[in-house]
Amino acid sequence: MKATILTVGTEILFGSITNTNSVYLSQHLNFLGVDVLRHITVGDNRNRLLEALSAAFSDCDIVLTTGGLGPTEDDMTKETIAEFFGRRIIEDPEQMAILKGWFAKNNRPMTDNNLKQAYFPEGSVILPNPNGTAPGFMLSDGARTIFVMPGPPREMQPMFDNYVAPKLSSADNGCLYYKMIKTIGIGESDLETKLLDLIDAQTDPTLATYVKDFTAMVRVASKRPTMEEAKAAVDEMSAKVRDRIGGYIYSEDNEELQQVVVNLLRSRKLKLSSAESMTGGLFAKTITDVPGSSAVFDRALVTYSNTAKMQELGVKQETLDKYTAVSQETALEMAAGLHKASGSDICVSVTGYAGPGDEETGLFYIGLYAFGELSVKKYKARRTKREDVRTIACMDMLRTVYMALKRM
Amino acid sequence: MKATILTVGTEILFGSITNTNSVYLSQHLNFLGVDVLRHITVGDNRNRLLEALSAAFSDCDIVLTTGGLGPTEDDMTKETIAEFFGRRIIEDPEQMAILKGWFAKNNRPMTDNNLKQAYFPEGSVILPNPNGTAPGFMLSDGARTIFVMPGPPREMQPMFDNYVAPKLSSADNGCLYYKMIKTIGIGESDLETKLLDLIDAQTDPTLATYVKDFTAMVRVASKRPTMEEAKAAVDEMSAKVRDRIGGYIYSEDNEELQQVVVNLLRSRKLKLSSAESMTGGLFAKTITDVPGSSAVFDRALVTYSNTAKMQELGVKQETLDKYTAVSQETALEMAAGLHKASGSDICVSVTGYAGPGDEETGLFYIGLYAFGELSVKKYKARRTKREDVRTIACMDMLRTVYMALKRM
Repeated sequence: MKATILTVGTEILFGSITNTNSVYLSQHLNFLGVDVLRHITVGDNRNRLLEALSAAFSDCDIVLTTGGLGPTEDDMTKETIAEFFGRRIIEDPEQMAILKGWFAKNNRPMTDNNLKQAYFPEGSVILPNPNGTAPGFMLSDGARTIFVMPGPPREMQPMFDNYVAPKLSSADNGCLYYKMIKTIGIGESDLETKLLDLIDAQTDPTLATYVKDFTAMVRVASKRPTMEEAKAAVDEMSAKVRDRIGGYIYSEDNEELQQVVVNLLRSRKLKLSSAESMTGGLFAKTITDVPGSSAVFDRALVTYSNTAKMQELGVKQETLDKYTAVSQETALEMAAGLHKASGSDICVSVTGYAGPGDEETGLFYIGLYAFGELSVKKYKARRTKREDVRTIACMDMLRTVYMALKRM
Repeated sequence: MKATILTVGTEILFGSITNTNSVYLSQHLNFLGVDVLRHITVGDNRNRLLEALSAAFSDCDIVLTTGGLGPTEDDMTKETIAEFFGRRIIEDPEQMAILKGWFAKNNRPMTDNNLKQAYFPEGSVILPNPNGTAPGFMLSDGARTIFVMPGPPREMQPMFDNYVAPKLSSADNGCLYYKMIKTIGIGESDLETKLLDLIDAQTDPTLATYVKDFTAMVRVASKRPTMEEAKAAVDEMSAKVRDRIGGYIYSEDNEELQQVVVNLLRSRKLKLSSAESMTGGLFAKTITDVPGSSAVFDRALVTYSNTAKMQELGVKQETLDKYTAVSQETALEMAAGLHKASGSDICVSVTGYAGPGDEETGLFYIGLYAFGELSVKKYKARRTKREDVRTIACMDMLRTVYMALKRM
């Protein structure tokens, strides 16, 4: 199967937003064994849409589109696709009912242009959209199949995962099974070096290394006649990978580190708290992203001002005067003060320079109280972008807590 | 002037890297008044490259390409462009000397395929690349002009800024000025309905509505011979937009709401603190994303457990027993307790059900202490995904603080 990804959106042509849909779809289509030959982005323009569809179907059997399904005047993707396939646009009574129900339930005024979203090219298979008002649809004339999805990633991604991917994997012979092995404390090139002979020798299962959110990971994938065979092949290869880099692996189930940390805390009935300065609550936000984290996360004291550090965490005036707020002494007093305030089994603290502009940008200290012991470590992020520095500090806090849990 | 951006790169089609070049070029071309009609990404494939060039030049007078200029066999962008323009590929002695010098200086072995990088289509204007071995070039036959640049952003961006942009701005293609008008408390279709006659009547300035991160916005853009005229036209139209939806506008400079809130607090020398339960620090994280927020943000007390609510904020045991942690009474005591602890001019609190699974998911209360007054409001998010519910609650906290600042 060969595919073209067609994105409709003026915002992308203005450079106001990045085309993340094409990245997401490319990754997932490749996982499914579909070759992506082309990305095209156009605005809400009939001629360019038609020209893009012709180009796409000149050498592809499937086209996936995102965007242009909104209720507004300029959204014309659906109409143009109907024209391309020579179909009429007709009302789908079921979708009309759902749409009206949605507006009633949320008592939002339903304007005429909203009605548009219940009309589809004749012969379409509706792709439900539980996360928005614009459903997607699949249209095929046998040789050519198009999947039409909304633009917002939080609507498009579940629609692809739940309705498009299954159709593609069933359509194509062989079952694909893959595992994401996530690591901690090792870079992508070291990782690749340690696995190079396995990577070079690969046919099936395939091995590939990635970096995402400052985390290096290995994808082990196999496509076999049955899912059992694919799974067995992946497990066998995963064992070899484990032999090489076992010490760096924190998850073989594509979990986020915060998920693993929360699970470890839950299983041991331990409580965690954080004292944050430079991260401004990012660590607490990251931990509490995990459903059920309330069972293990007690509190975060985000002491952005020095006054707050003294009042909430008992950091001493002298310490701030003598060593400044960004020092190992302050980080230690923050962790100790947090334990005193919360009584949590594990208390992690951070203080540093998030930048931008500051010459010291990227310098931070992580303090830790864990099972009766206090410790502190100095870090220097290799990035200077405020967002990156804060993310790196948060990741290192997670690693610090994870390592403490592994030690115990 | 109309442009197509053509990216050549298999990694992009695999989804291994994001197409940031198209974002960078789109933004900069739009600022130069060049309309970007299309993005196309293909791999190193002669037929698809030729087809893309035909499509691009069917309605554009300029095409900018990035990628495919490497020394290896599969890099065929240059050859294919020469074929498309009907030019021979000839050696550029000056570039050959530079290239050989580079390899000598970095004492790197120079393979035969490296020589390729000193050959260009006849009639090309070389675009120097001080950051890599592959120079770019410009080729024109009068009606059609192509700018060919390397793929790595650190090579492409300076090449565009120093050699491509000047050529484009000198060309007579008008000046584009635009404004992003961001709104609060109104949906996209309501917004469009209120502006429909203006949108329908538009020629220049143009009006378009967007939604991003639960925020509906209007883009007002004009292209005129001079920047002054463009700006005047946009300002005139913006005034009309303001007449229709003025009450919903929080920024006409494409700022984030947190940026606007931080600016308002700074200009009035006011302090802000937050008491967070369901958002788990997301509000504090969002405010402290803004550089310089340390001048206005004092602290966040993320009281995830009931014990923490009582210890840090003085929420009463009876209140939790009688009304539960998710109640307007608790939200009020959180805001009051936070003011007592921090003395901040504005203290915002939130408690609710982030979900998932919980029947009450999406229900939350926002408490506010502002300038001596306490208030509380009940909310029900229209989404049930944990991430969405938390984001919506955070947005509503920002709105609550913003509205309080506007009232005073």
